[in-house]
Amino acid sequence: MKEMEPFKLLVSHEEAKKIILRTCIPTERIEKIPIDEAAGRVLASDVKADRFVPPFERSAMDGYAVIAEDTYGADEREIYLELDGVIHAGEVSAQEVRHGHCVQIATGSPLVSGANSVVMVEYTERHEDRILVTKPVYPGANVSKKGEDIEEGDLVLTAGAWLTPAKIGTLAALGWTEVEVYTSPRIAVIPTGEEIVTPGDNLNPGQIYDVNSFTLETILRANGAQVDRFGIVGDDYSALKDTIEKALQYDMVILSGGSSVGEKDLLAGILADVGEVLFHGVQIKPGKPTLYGVAQNTPVFGMPGYPTSCLSNAYIFLVPAVRQMARLPPEHQNTVFAKISKRLVSASGRQQFLTVRIRNEIAYPVYKHSGAITSMATADGYIILPVNLDVIEEGETVEVILFE
Amino acid sequence: MKEMEPFKLLVSHEEAKKIILRTCIPTERIEKIPIDEAAGRVLASDVKADRFVPPFERSAMDGYAVIAEDTYGADEREIYLELDGVIHAGEVSAQEVRHGHCVQIATGSPLVSGANSVVMVEYTERHEDRILVTKPVYPGANVSKKGEDIEEGDLVLTAGAWLTPAKIGTLAALGWTEVEVYTSPRIAVIPTGEEIVTPGDNLNPGQIYDVNSFTLETILRANGAQVDRFGIVGDDYSALKDTIEKALQYDMVILSGGSSVGEKDLLAGILADVGEVLFHGVQIKPGKPTLYGVAQNTPVFGMPGYPTSCLSNAYIFLVPAVRQMARLPPEHQNTVFAKISKRLVSASGRQQFLTVRIRNEIAYPVYKHSGAITSMATADGYIILPVNLDVIEEGETVEVILFE
Repeated sequence: MKEMEPFKLLVSHEEAKKIILRTCIPTERIEKIPIDEAAGRVLASDVKADRFVPPFERSAMDGYAVIAEDTYGADEREIYLELDGVIHAGEVSAQEVRHGHCVQIATGSPLVSGANSVVMVEYTERHEDRILVTKPVYPGANVSKKGEDIEEGDLVLTAGAWLTPAKIGTLAALGWTEVEVYTSPRIAVIPTGEEIVTPGDNLNPGQIYDVNSFTLETILRANGAQVDRFGIVGDDYSALKDTIEKALQYDMVILSGGSSVGEKDLLAGILADVGEVLFHGVQIKPGKPTLYGVAQNTPVFGMPGYPTSCLSNAYIFLVPAVRQMARLPPEHQNTVFAKISKRLVSASGRQQFLTVRIRNEIAYPVYKHSGAITSMATADGYIILPVNLDVIEEGETVEVILFE
Repeated sequence: MKEMEPFKLLVSHEEAKKIILRTCIPTERIEKIPIDEAAGRVLASDVKADRFVPPFERSAMDGYAVIAEDTYGADEREIYLELDGVIHAGEVSAQEVRHGHCVQIATGSPLVSGANSVVMVEYTERHEDRILVTKPVYPGANVSKKGEDIEEGDLVLTAGAWLTPAKIGTLAALGWTEVEVYTSPRIAVIPTGEEIVTPGDNLNPGQIYDVNSFTLETILRANGAQVDRFGIVGDDYSALKDTIEKALQYDMVILSGGSSVGEKDLLAGILADVGEVLFHGVQIKPGKPTLYGVAQNTPVFGMPGYPTSCLSNAYIFLVPAVRQMARLPPEHQNTVFAKISKRLVSASGRQQFLTVRIRNEIAYPVYKHSGAITSMATADGYIILPVNLDVIEEGETVEVILFE
């Protein structure tokens, strides 16, 4: 019978985060993918424009292509221009606008040769083949220059940019079909524990369903990772060690369960054997039994087995770690202020993450137990109680970080 | 030659949004999907627990299963208990804890028969086969009751819930492999215009690349839609009408380009022929030439052809419309306050959406032209200038809605 030893040296939340962010290195791997699959990805190289956008001088409005000088005085007296024809978008006209004449032109059509401006349709009246201009234009009015949007050679997007709809649109404007992005981190999620069963299988006495692989997979994917869920591994040294060693080809390995004290020290032992343990135990509640280390340059997390501890720590530690590896911008945390529904006493000596539900600007604690997934599932967000805080009085204002 | 007529009756931004949200009906279609693909989807039916979680009474801590009464006084005198064995997670013990005895127990293991509490390993010392208890426990200490998290029959999730990681975890905890969610709206995106070319193809004189299908696809997918990008359709009545009629089997039809005045009134005419035009022209800048109507109960948008107008209106009108159809919660808009870098004069008589870039808490306008995709791609967000506003002075504080 193996002895159980309690955690010895707990690191603080801040220290744990610092260690993780120091060792979860931003990826250098690059891949080329179609632009219509690149949304939310991170650009791996600068985009220099290889053409002008638009590639020609064009009308910015529906109206008439004119020689501006012909319209001077149109606000004081009647000026008619002869209508010589029409140019549609996508056409190039062989016509030339001469003094006293005009050509009907649609938005986006190449400007007709000879013309230097466009009178908006709103400032004209049509009289058969003659156009009455009711307002003068200056040379260049309602005309978009070639390259007005993008000039050939412009640095339009820089490496590291996060590909928003507009940035995808910029690539399309240049006619690109593919783009170089950083490869999404590949993460192995390994559920461990003799009592864990995959949903859908039968539960025997003493067994429960695997929750953590599913919550981890969901949150990791939402933060830019590719996730492979492994089969469940029991509390067996060589089976666990084999699985971890195989998983080290991934960019990150996350084990769920198996990092509590007692026989579960197994995992810390294996990590020490194949790499280095950087911390084991964090001064937070829930989520204390968290193990972290590096093996063959791959970060390895031993997440707590309890669903709320595991998911809470995923928000706190995994999300920033994965986003940094993926080179994504830091997560935007949405917060609201609310009044706490009841007096809270914090006696844990650890920084506490307390899930709450918000109704009518009042925050109701919903935390039951770190083993209860409903502590997270029924929550709108969480509040952080500092290590040195003893009491929050009923009705005090707290800042709630929303789950989203 | 067809006549061009200017827009006649512009609706306000608010009125346009009201019309859209009244006619983009939340979906009633339901599908069953695997829980590991259900993240971000919307639950279509209540989830009633069909089992207890956990399904048995278990230890909440690593330690020793004891009869609490045996530990009373442990803080005052030395109390030793005989160690009778160990129970691991996933095991069910046939043992029974008797007075003066204990069984080593791991977190999550079923509580041993006869025991009524668990002493944490932290409050014990092991002396061979005897355990020194250093702190008494009360009956029930460190024990999780059967159903502590979820009781059979509990309503754990309600229809309409947005499936967060914790809610997916709740389904896993119940052993579910599939879940009923609302079907994501299927949207047809149809690029129109004679001058438009698909990226990757060659540009002839007068032609430009299709930008809008790509920006629309990206933003719609990010807001819960399935998108089919159609091939480019020219400015031809019967080709456009055929395509639109085929596309009416989708939940929403979005045409880009082809809603400006002039010959592009084509689209408004077709929409009037196959359904009903609800507005044509909105009092906003950019984005005025926007057409909206309903045909065979399917909402049909004619988005402006200019990339910035199109994408700006996608943020303003399409995102709330699609999220409502998908039954997703309203988009969370992140805003920041910044000082405007220069004096702005608004003389458009329309509500204006002005893209800005933020550096050191100063908002620099980056809007070039509604035809310039870079007006969006280089922006961090936008500010809204009301219809009745004339001037914002340099250094005034503005609220910036961030693109994210």
